[in-house]
Amino acid sequence: MLKFNIAMSLDGFVAGPNPSEQDPLGEGGMRLHEWVFELAAWREPHGREGGVVNESTQIVEQSQANVGATIMGRNMFGGGPGPWGAEEWQGWWGEEPPFHVPVFVLTHHAREPLALAGGTTFHFVTDGVESALAQAQEAAAGKDVALAGGADVAQQCLSAGLIDELRLSVVPVVLGSGTRLFGAGAGAGLALEQVQVVQAPGVAHLVYRKR
Amino acid sequence: MLKFNIAMSLDGFVAGPNPSEQDPLGEGGMRLHEWVFELAAWREPHGREGGVVNESTQIVEQSQANVGATIMGRNMFGGGPGPWGAEEWQGWWGEEPPFHVPVFVLTHHAREPLALAGGTTFHFVTDGVESALAQAQEAAAGKDVALAGGADVAQQCLSAGLIDELRLSVVPVVLGSGTRLFGAGAGAGLALEQVQVVQAPGVAHLVYRKR
Repeated sequence: MLKFNIAMSLDGFVAGPNPSEQDPLGEGGMRLHEWVFELAAWREPHGREGGVVNESTQIVEQSQANVGATIMGRNMFGGGPGPWGAEEWQGWWGEEPPFHVPVFVLTHHAREPLALAGGTTFHFVTDGVESALAQAQEAAAGKDVALAGGADVAQQCLSAGLIDELRLSVVPVVLGSGTRLFGAGAGAGLALEQVQVVQAPGVAHLVYRKR
Repeated sequence: MLKFNIAMSLDGFVAGPNPSEQDPLGEGGMRLHEWVFELAAWREPHGREGGVVNESTQIVEQSQANVGATIMGRNMFGGGPGPWGAEEWQGWWGEEPPFHVPVFVLTHHAREPLALAGGTTFHFVTDGVESALAQAQEAAAGKDVALAGGADVAQQCLSAGLIDELRLSVVPVVLGSGTRLFGAGAGAGLALEQVQVVQAPGVAHLVYRKR
């Protein structure tokens, strides 16, 4: 099963305008994630102490549970567009990334796998999202595959009907511009079933399954 | 208090593409409202028998409660654009409209008030949304004012910060195109507080208040 969780503004944006290397979520984009940063369920796997338990906890735990592999786009791995440089970018994620599973990065530029501490190995896939998903499913060995984003890969997966479980966390923020999850008609006509709706502090979690 | 409830697709559309006089909600737009048509709480005030009671009932009852006046756009009243014809259009709403309060219709074309059965009188306002709201608030005499739509007036109200309570009913449908509630940056920067989230059959109700 391919599952995808993402935070979205009330007006449908998953990143603000003018993203940059310094501000990869765009202007105001960080406001989409404030609810998660305060959770113990998020802080612990990201190596931070403290945090609260609330109605969002079960949602974050469900997203993290039973994940055997992850797929993501090149921008989410990081390093800017174009060929990999001589000093190859090691990703946004530090020396011990929070994935702890094989991660398949969609890119136009081939590269050897990058093994980092804690069980995360980045594999670079150049032949498209369906290939990345197939490789991730094989690596997951029966567990779920998580789609980490970003919006471009998510739109490809939505439009191809590849996402089995869509988990939206809708934040009461109106960004006005930026990157829409459902931009340019992505996912039009998808047949979804609403399976769970959760009211949590400062966020509404909506879980859908592909019919 | 100005309150506004509207059904929205998961991708942010409140009407489908290619609306027409025959199909005012656009292609697929009726799918946004299926959850409400089956409710006794909707059927009774619309003169229909039967229907169910479920988790949506309280949401619809809240929307209908304590409304002293309504505002709407010209398209929602109906009759097409331009001056009123010789045989003046009486609205989509039949001889006994379901409003039972004064309704202030935003239009560029002046017209005498139209009193219909059951307490609904349509007043035609040509000097803008803030004037319509002021007149509606006076007519409501302390009760709430409901914004009935459509999207154009809603966007004007969102952008002007006039909506005190925003009630979105998010349906698991991906229309792909049509009319967005939050189109063209409408409401950007609005400060909202999430006050209620309700899981109901086939729909998620999200209620926000202006901060």
